[in-house]
Amino acid sequence: MGSRVRNNQITIKEIQDTAERVKNWGRWGPDDEIGTLNNISPEDIVNAARLIRRGKVFSLGLNFDNRGPQTGLWGNRFNPIHTMLTSGVDAIAGRQDSIGIRYADDMVTMPLQCGTQWDALGHVFFGDKMWNGYEAKLVDSSGAQKNGIEKTRDKMAGRGVLLDVARFKGVESLEDGYGIGTEELEDCAKAQGVEVRRGDFVIFRTGQMERCLKTGVWGGYAGGDAPGLRFETADWIRRTDIAAICADTWGCEVRPNESSEASQPWHWVVIPMIGITMGEIFYLKDLAEDCAKDHVYEFFFCGPPLPITGAVGSPINPIAIK
Amino acid sequence: MGSRVRNNQITIKEIQDTAERVKNWGRWGPDDEIGTLNNISPEDIVNAARLIRRGKVFSLGLNFDNRGPQTGLWGNRFNPIHTMLTSGVDAIAGRQDSIGIRYADDMVTMPLQCGTQWDALGHVFFGDKMWNGYEAKLVDSSGAQKNGIEKTRDKMAGRGVLLDVARFKGVESLEDGYGIGTEELEDCAKAQGVEVRRGDFVIFRTGQMERCLKTGVWGGYAGGDAPGLRFETADWIRRTDIAAICADTWGCEVRPNESSEASQPWHWVVIPMIGITMGEIFYLKDLAEDCAKDHVYEFFFCGPPLPITGAVGSPINPIAIK
Amino acid sequence: MGSRVRNNQITIKEIQDTAERVKNWGRWGPDDEIGTLNNISPEDIVNAARLIRRGKVFSLGLNFDNRGPQTGLWGNRFNPIHTMLTSGVDAIAGRQDSIGIRYADDMVTMPLQCGTQWDALGHVFFGDKMWNGYEAKLVDSSGAQKNGIEKTRDKMAGRGVLLDVARFKGVESLEDGYGIGTEELEDCAKAQGVEVRRGDFVIFRTGQMERCLKTGVWGGYAGGDAPGLRFETADWIRRTDIAAICADTWGCEVRPNESSEASQPWHWVVIPMIGITMGEIFYLKDLAEDCAKDHVYEFFFCGPPLPITGAVGSPINPIAIK
Amino acid sequence: MGSRVRNNQITIKEIQDTAERVKNWGRWGPDDEIGTLNNISPEDIVNAARLIRRGKVFSLGLNFDNRGPQTGLWGNRFNPIHTMLTSGVDAIAGRQDSIGIRYADDMVTMPLQCGTQWDALGHVFFGDKMWNGYEAKLVDSSGAQKNGIEKTRDKMAGRGVLLDVARFKGVESLEDGYGIGTEELEDCAKAQGVEVRRGDFVIFRTGQMERCLKTGVWGGYAGGDAPGLRFETADWIRRTDIAAICADTWGCEVRPNESSEASQPWHWVVIPMIGITMGEIFYLKDLAEDCAKDHVYEFFFCGPPLPITGAVGSPINPIAIK
Repeated sequence: MGSRVRNNQITIKEIQDTAERVKNWGRWGPDDEIGTLNNISPEDIVNAARLIRRGKVFSLGLNFDNRGPQTGLWGNRFNPIHTMLTSGVDAIAGRQDSIGIRYADDMVTMPLQCGTQWDALGHVFFGDKMWNGYEAKLVDSSGAQKNGIEKTRDKMAGRGVLLDVARFKGVESLEDGYGIGTEELEDCAKAQGVEVRRGDFVIFRTGQMERCLKTGVWGGYAGGDAPGLRFETADWIRRTDIAAICADTWGCEVRPNESSEASQPWHWVVIPMIGITMGEIFYLKDLAEDCAKDHVYEFFFCGPPLPITGAVGSPINPIAIK
Repeated sequence: MGSRVRNNQITIKEIQDTAERVKNWGRWGPDDEIGTLNNISPEDIVNAARLIRRGKVFSLGLNFDNRGPQTGLWGNRFNPIHTMLTSGVDAIAGRQDSIGIRYADDMVTMPLQCGTQWDALGHVFFGDKMWNGYEAKLVDSSGAQKNGIEKTRDKMAGRGVLLDVARFKGVESLEDGYGIGTEELEDCAKAQGVEVRRGDFVIFRTGQMERCLKTGVWGGYAGGDAPGLRFETADWIRRTDIAAICADTWGCEVRPNESSEASQPWHWVVIPMIGITMGEIFYLKDLAEDCAKDHVYEFFFCGPPLPITGAVGSPINPIAIK
Repeated sequence: MGSRVRNNQITIKEIQDTAERVKNWGRWGPDDEIGTLNNISPEDIVNAARLIRRGKVFSLGLNFDNRGPQTGLWGNRFNPIHTMLTSGVDAIAGRQDSIGIRYADDMVTMPLQCGTQWDALGHVFFGDKMWNGYEAKLVDSSGAQKNGIEKTRDKMAGRGVLLDVARFKGVESLEDGYGIGTEELEDCAKAQGVEVRRGDFVIFRTGQMERCLKTGVWGGYAGGDAPGLRFETADWIRRTDIAAICADTWGCEVRPNESSEASQPWHWVVIPMIGITMGEIFYLKDLAEDCAKDHVYEFFFCGPPLPITGAVGSPINPIAIK
Repeated sequence: MGSRVRNNQITIKEIQDTAERVKNWGRWGPDDEIGTLNNISPEDIVNAARLIRRGKVFSLGLNFDNRGPQTGLWGNRFNPIHTMLTSGVDAIAGRQDSIGIRYADDMVTMPLQCGTQWDALGHVFFGDKMWNGYEAKLVDSSGAQKNGIEKTRDKMAGRGVLLDVARFKGVESLEDGYGIGTEELEDCAKAQGVEVRRGDFVIFRTGQMERCLKTGVWGGYAGGDAPGLRFETADWIRRTDIAAICADTWGCEVRPNESSEASQPWHWVVIPMIGITMGEIFYLKDLAEDCAKDHVYEFFFCGPPLPITGAVGSPINPIAIK
C-alpha cells in the first residue's frame, strides 16, 4: 500500500538488483532507441481510437511562460523566456511598412524539461550506460547521438489510462513525501473499473500541481518534495509492459528520495533499464474531473514530441480524447 | 486552374474587397480567439477517429536543428539552437557525483516559426486589426493578449485531408512561382477520391520541401519563391469552412507575390479576416507516399501546439494516423 | 540635504518644467546620439591618464551569473544564462577527436541590463521622444535606430570621481528610500577633497549592493526600494556638465518614487532631456575602501560598452585605475 | 621570414617538444589562473598611461549583430541575436502606461567568442590538462571552475603595441594561408620603430577583416583559411613575456593548419602551456591608419572582459588610447 515514506532505506545493492531484474536491454534488438514504446502495436492504436466516443479533447499541457514551476531549485532550469521579434505595435507604428505585410513574430528560450514534458531515454544513465546498453558518453555537448527524443516522433499515440490516486484516496492532493506503491496502483485501477494493459500511456494523478496552482506558490514543486511512485513500482512497470508513465508532478517518483545512497533511485532503473518513456508536469485537473463524472478512465492519448535532434527531452502539449 | 503566376496584378482594392467578402468577424461571438477551429464539432472528431484503421502514425514534423530551413533571408528568424545543460559525458567524468544521479539535460532557443509550425491568429494583421476585430496593438512586446496560440490548446484534432497537388500534376515538385488555384484544388480532391468538408485540416503538398531535402540546399525556401495557393483560394477557404490549411512550404501562398502593392496578399486576408489557422513547413513525403499507395487521402489528424502564453506561433510535430 | 523621502510630491507639471529647464537637445547638433559624453574633451582624457599613479586597477563589474540581482520583480529581466557549447569533459572523453583540437566554448543569454551596465540614451523616453528629440518609435523590435549603445563605443574613458555618500554619512549602507540631494553630493565631494568637473564619470556609493552581498539576499534590489538621488539633482547634473552618473544601485534614483504621478521621475528627465549616460549596479566596495585609505577620490575611468548594434544598454566591466 | 605555408609539416612530437620548452606552469604559483597577464606590473600600467598624449580613443570592437562573421562553418557558433523586451513603439502605443515610465529594454543571446573577444585560459586544452596543469575536466557543463575569464577582471590594462604586418609588407591584406614568422614580427617592429616589451598587449594586423568588410563577404573568416602567426612564434611569445597576443583574424594562427596531425597546433601550445591570453576578431583599421600617420605604434590599452562566471571567453570592446 501507499504510505508516507518514513526512511530512505533503498541501497545501491537493491537498486542494482532491481536494475538487473527489470532490464529490457536487447529486447527490441541492439539498435532500439525507443524502449517500451515498442509495446504499442498498430492494433492498440486502432483500438484506442475507438475510445473517442464524445469528441471531447483535453489538453494536458501547462502553459509555458515565466509563471512556470521553475524556481531555481534544481539543475539550472528556468522558466520559458518568450520574446517578440516584431509585434502588432510595431505594425501599427508603421515600422514594417517597407515589408508590405503587417505581422508579429516571436521566439522562445527554454529548458526542454521546464514544463509539461517527455523525458527522452537519453535523459538518465545507469553507471556509464543508458537505455539498451548505449554508452552514456554518446550524450555529449552536441546532444544525444542515441536515444534522442526525435526517435519517438511517431510513437506517442495510443490508449491512455488515468489513475486518479488522489481521488481514490479521497483527498484533494496527496501529501509531499507520500509514496504510492504497486498495490495501491492496482487497487486504484480496480476501484475505477479500468484495466492497465500492455502499451498503455499510464497517467497517475497526485493533485500536487493543482495544490500549487490553487495557492499560487510553486515552492518545491520542481525538485523538492512530492508525492509519487515508490521504488517498488519499477517491477510493476516492467511486468505490465506499459508504454509510458506520466504524472502531474515534476518527477513521477516520491520525494524525499527513498534512498540515502542515491537520488531518485526509481529514475536510475526505469529509464535506462526498462526503457520507459516518462511524462512529467502534466496538467490533469480537467481530465480527472471528467473521468470522475463519467467513470471512464480510458481514452485516446496523443502527445507528439518536438523532434529536436539529439534532445533528451521535449516540451509537449499532450492530448487526451474521450 | 493552376499556373505559373505571370504578373502581380492583385491590387490593394481587390485585397480589401476580398477581405470584406470573406470576413468571419463576430461569427463565433465577439470574444472568439480561435476562428475556423470552431468549425470542428465533437462529432467530427468522433468521425475522424474512425479513419484510424491500420494504426499507422505519420509524423509531419521536420527535425528541429541547425540544419533547418532558415538561411537568414527573412525576418531575423534563425534555426533552433540546442544546447546541453549537462550531459552523459559530464556524468561519466564524475561531475555530477555530488548530486546522486547521472543525467543529461538541455535547452533550446528558437523562433516559434522557424520550422514545422502553427501560425496563431495573432500572427498577421489587416490594417490596425487582427482576427475578430481585435486591435493589433494587443500584440505588443509582452506577447499576444488576444489570439495567442495557447487559446487553441485543445482544438487541433480532427479529420485530415491530403491534397497531393504535385502528384496530381505528375511532378516531383511544383515549380517555385507556380500558383495553385481553386479549380485545381477541387480537381485534385476529385482525382484522389476525397471530399473536403467543414472542419477539415486540409494539407496540400507541393513537393518543394522534398526538392530542398534531396538537393541538400534550402536556398530561398524560407522567405523566397515557392509554389503555393493563389489569392483566389481565399474564397474557397471561406466557402468550404475548413478548420485549417497546411502545406509543405514556408508560407502556403505562392511566391513571388501576386501583388506589387502588398507582400503575401493571401495572408492579409485568410488569417485576420477568415480566422483560419495555418500550418507551414509540414514534412509530407511519407504520408503522401502512403496515400498514393492505398488511395486513402483522409486520416485522423492531431497537431497540439505548445501553449506558450501569448505566442503568435508554435513549433509542432503534427501527427496523421491512418 | 539628503533625507528619507517622506512623500511622493513631484508632479507631472514639475517633471515637465524641469525637463524644459535642463534640456540639452540640439546642443551638440541635430544628429548627436551621445549627449553628455560630448563633455569629455581629448585634453580631459590626457589629464585623466595622469591620475594613474600607482598602476592599481579596480574592476567595478559584478560577476554575471545566475546569482545576479534579478529576482523577477521587474520588467521580465532575468539573470544571465551561461551554457557550454562544448567542454573540457567532452574533450577528455574523446568527443572532439575528429576535430584535432581540445577546447571548450560557451554562450550566454542575458538581458543587457541584468547586471553592471550602461543605459543607452535610447533606454528611456519623454512622451513620444527620446534624447535630442528623436522619435521614440525609432526604437522598435529591430532595436534602436538612434541613440543605440554602439554610438558610444569610443567614448567611455575619462576622469572618474567617487562620491562615497554612505561613508560620508558614517554608515555601511544608506537605507532604502533615502534620497540624496544636491547639497549632500556637494558636501560629500568637499569632505572628500575632490572637485566634480565637466566631463567626469561621477560614481556615487550608497552601500546598498554590499548590504545585499553581505546578507546573501538581493530582495528588492532590482526594481524595489533603494537609496538614491533625489529628483532635484537633475539640475545639478545639468549644471555640472558631467559625462555620466553611476551608482552601486539598480537605478541611481531613490525609490520608492518621489512622485505618485510617475515612476522614476528623475529618469524621465536625465536620460532623454539632459542626455546623460547612466551606469548602474556598479561594484564599488574595493574602490571605495582604497579611496578611504589614500583619500584620493579621482582616477582614470574606462568602461567600454559592447557595441551591440541598436542596443539600449550594455553589460560592462568598468575599470577604475589609480 | 613569413611565407605562404606550403606544407603541414608540424608533428605531434614537435608540438609536444615545444610545449615542454615554453611551459610556464607553476611560474606564478600553483594557484595561478591568469598566466602571462602576471607579466604586467603596476609600473607598466603607470608607464602605459603616459602614452595617452592626444586623448584619442580607438574602439577595437566589431559591432555585435547578425551581420557578424559567423557563417555556420565552425563549432556551432552563431552571430548575436539581439531582441527587445519592450520598445519605444510599445511606449508610444501606451502599452506601458500602467508602469508610469516609458522605456525600452533588450536582451542578447550569443556565443562568447562570436565576435571581438578574449579567449580565457580555460578555452584550449593540452591532452587532459589546461593552463597551469589544472585538469581539463574542471571545465564541465557548469562552466570553468578554474581559468575562467572572470579571474582576469582587473588585469586587462597596460601598454599596447600594434604590429601592422600587412602595411609593413606593403599590402592591403595578407593572403589567406600566409604564415607570419618570428623574424618578420621583429622586422616589422623594427621598421615601425617600436619595441615589444614584457607585459605588452601585442596586436598584429593582417588586413583580413578589412578585406572581408570591404567585399561584404565573410566567407571562411570564422574557421576557414587565414593569414596568421606560424607555429614557431610560440617560442617568441614565451621569450618576450608579453601579456597578450591579439589580431584582426578569427584565430591569430595561420590557416590552413601547419600540421596534418593537429588542428591549430599553435593554440595547443600557447594557451595551455604559455598561459597567454588571446584576443581575436579585433577591428584595427582606424588604429592602424592613425599609427601609420603619426608613426607611433604604442598606446594605452584597456580591454576589460565581462566577468561571466566560469566562462571560457568574453565578448569585448577593447580600447586603445593615444
